[in-house]
Amino acid sequence: VFALDPAFLRTSVALADLGLSAARLQNDARWPWIVLVPRVSAARELEDLSPGDRARLMQEIVLAGAAVRAVGVALDWPVEKLNVGLLGNVTPQLHAHVVGRRAGDAAWPGPVWGVGEAVPYSPSALSAARSAALPTLAP
Amino acid sequence: VFALDPAFLRTSVALADLGLSAARLQNDARWPWIVLVPRVSAARELEDLSPGDRARLMQEIVLAGAAVRAVGVALDWPVEKLNVGLLGNVTPQLHAHVVGRRAGDAAWPGPVWGVGEAVPYSPSALSAARSAALPTLAP
Repeated sequence: VFALDPAFLRTSVALADLGLSAARLQNDARWPWIVLVPRVSAARELEDLSPGDRARLMQEIVLAGAAVRAVGVALDWPVEKLNVGLLGNVTPQLHAHVVGRRAGDAAWPGPVWGVGEAVPYSPSALSAARSAALPTLAP
Repeated sequence: VFALDPAFLRTSVALADLGLSAARLQNDARWPWIVLVPRVSAARELEDLSPGDRARLMQEIVLAGAAVRAVGVALDWPVEKLNVGLLGNVTPQLHAHVVGRRAGDAAWPGPVWGVGEAVPYSPSALSAARSAALPTLAP
């Protein structure tokens, strides 16, 4: 049975259940950032997914990219580039990060992972981000 | 017409042309590391690929992961985790990094991108790495 690693509950908030993945908004106002966690028990690497699920995850990554762009528009945070990462060095449960980037952001041009401390959203910004992401993720 | 960004020529060596991507070995002995560059003109983001090419890229990422593991075996560098990243903040031409990681490596548990300076392979290690990767990539 699939269960979300508690680490995701601490760092992100639920957005929507997609066909394969739980989509979550990273609670870090420094970047518009969605995390996708495929609901597949014990998966750690892409090779642990079936070919069909791999293709589904790829499509959900593209969908999350569109949602990240929508969050950026809502928060007046223009996304210039998308970054996608599947690392799992700290939290091994398979997950994909989809992060909006722009020149001069808090880690530009380096990667975002492990940089500084998360800046939680204010309640109003969190609500705006969720409202912007949801129509793209779960139309 | 597709042309490889010259940045890839400086930092990596050709391995094989896969169905979609040019597969290259990152010339950095700190990690077994393959870069895939889809041969699609002007692509910067996954959304710029057709759905079929996205699925192809996903399969080539899994293949590159197996090749990275084979390189690790050949170089006595046991791969414990794969990291996949599509960033493009510095070199915008669409490309995917597939990197072997292990506890205690030169950036563990953080990401590899932008960390320190590349350590080029010796000619013999480069040859061993290529010989290990090729049967997996181009069987």
